Amino acid sequence: MILLDGKKTSNDIKEEIAIAVDGMKERGEKVPHLAAILVGEDGASLTYVGSKVRACERVGFESTLVQMPDTTSEEELLNTINDLNTNDAIDGFIVQLPLPKHIDEQKVLMAVNPNKDVDGFHPENFGKMALDMDSFIPATPFGILQLLERYEVETKGKNTVVIGRSHIVGRPMSILMSQKGPAGNSTVTLTHSHTKNLSEITKQADIIVVALGIPEFLKGDMVKDGVVIVDVGISRVPDASKKRGYAIKGDVAFDEVSKKSSFITPVPGGVGPMTIAMLLKNTLIARERLANL
Amino acid sequence: MILLDGKKTSNDIKEEIAIAVDGMKERGEKVPHLAAILVGEDGASLTYVGSKVRACERVGFESTLVQMPDTTSEEELLNTINDLNTNDAIDGFIVQLPLPKHIDEQKVLMAVNPNKDVDGFHPENFGKMALDMDSFIPATPFGILQLLERYEVETKGKNTVVIGRSHIVGRPMSILMSQKGPAGNSTVTLTHSHTKNLSEITKQADIIVVALGIPEFLKGDMVKDGVVIVDVGISRVPDASKKRGYAIKGDVAFDEVSKKSSFITPVPGGVGPMTIAMLLKNTLIARERLANL
Repeated sequence: MILLDGKKTSNDIKEEIAIAVDGMKERGEKVPHLAAILVGEDGASLTYVGSKVRACERVGFESTLVQMPDTTSEEELLNTINDLNTNDAIDGFIVQLPLPKHIDEQKVLMAVNPNKDVDGFHPENFGKMALDMDSFIPATPFGILQLLERYEVETKGKNTVVIGRSHIVGRPMSILMSQKGPAGNSTVTLTHSHTKNLSEITKQADIIVVALGIPEFLKGDMVKDGVVIVDVGISRVPDASKKRGYAIKGDVAFDEVSKKSSFITPVPGGVGPMTIAMLLKNTLIARERLANL
Repeated sequence: MILLDGKKTSNDIKEEIAIAVDGMKERGEKVPHLAAILVGEDGASLTYVGSKVRACERVGFESTLVQMPDTTSEEELLNTINDLNTNDAIDGFIVQLPLPKHIDEQKVLMAVNPNKDVDGFHPENFGKMALDMDSFIPATPFGILQLLERYEVETKGKNTVVIGRSHIVGRPMSILMSQKGPAGNSTVTLTHSHTKNLSEITKQADIIVVALGIPEFLKGDMVKDGVVIVDVGISRVPDASKKRGYAIKGDVAFDEVSKKSSFITPVPGGVGPMTIAMLLKNTLIARERLANL
């Protein structure tokens, strides 16, 4: 069993990005500049955005954090987005989710210039991705593809089962892995809450991607020997034996399933650490595309 | 075995559209107006566009055919598209494919205003469709959903196998049937040229959608009893016994497979006739959306 080590792989990717940025600096070129809009004071959101800003610093990007109060109106937010859309200094930006309830999230995501949409959440980018055109792949799916590719996991002609049809993981993974291209050409089955006899389907899978958010959902008796497991879940489960009072669990019963796996992502330290690295990678891609216009 | 009769169903839909248009006329409202751009003199394209224009007349739509010579430059075509994008009289329009080789098809499709893109080929519409947002569903997939829905074919919790990952049929069908919504909630497996042991997969399918373009590809021994078959293929196969010298064949060996099927689309007369009806339906939707702005 080989661990798909997201911590190590994400550090490798950040290192590669830092080298690319050094080259830009040496050649006197503009370096990538990522902006993040944060509306409100949600603690988790503050932490996420903070990590993104620090990651920018680490690889040599410029970064801008636009903090707006909880009381920001939808119109004010849309105006700020428009400023970033048209600001040539900014190569890419994100709007940290969730937004306060009085703001229409869909309207906000639609307002982001697709060429600067480094989260890959704009429908135009999603459509381009599905139609094999250049786009921004959302960070989590992009990170999973990178893990599979860098560990040389064979996907071509393999049976892949994706569990969960979310817009940010399950749906894009089912598309990407069945396309031509790296970590692609797989025969993908997308399963969800209406799927019957899930175990029979997962037992036939060479590769399983689980993105449900249900701790330890996938058990050992649901998989075959030699399976490749990508676990996207991250849940806090009460655990009195831990100082902080909880344990972090994935969607996979790791102890059982890892014994039968050829490759498996740990939780934490698997898919999670990849997302910020891929956000940086998308920002680098945005800069390179703008430079080549 | 029940035939999924596309000829009858498409006539029903056209009839419903005609009634809706009559209502618009009675209320003194603008009726839907579809425009089609045809570049060059390709015989098949002329036939297709002609059928679309006649279908518009039949349901009471206004229609405009913009014919441009083979020598039209990409810029001239883009200018014409821009005219239609901004012309308030036009509710929706299509650019008939294929285009002459000196014109970049992707660039042209990207230039169509997504709100008037009644073919549903713009990536923004494809992305909206994949993300469960209002969009235009491309005519062939939309027609298949309508056939399944109107014949009350149960899809929820069923195993669906889609054969072929084309942008205009296989890929969108795999998305639509696995979504919530009419003819959805199915567990979908998308197969393609790299799929191994296809027969083993199709034999487990409750519903099979074949869109390969290989005459009589799907044989009787590849399906289980009671299967639902949607055959998207239309090929001309040389046949000396026919006056015109060829027979029209689908991707399914109809005589063998129909014996085991609960529902099956004939070829011709199944999926084919649905496409123009759904193009009209999309144009009606475009008009209604514009009226509600």
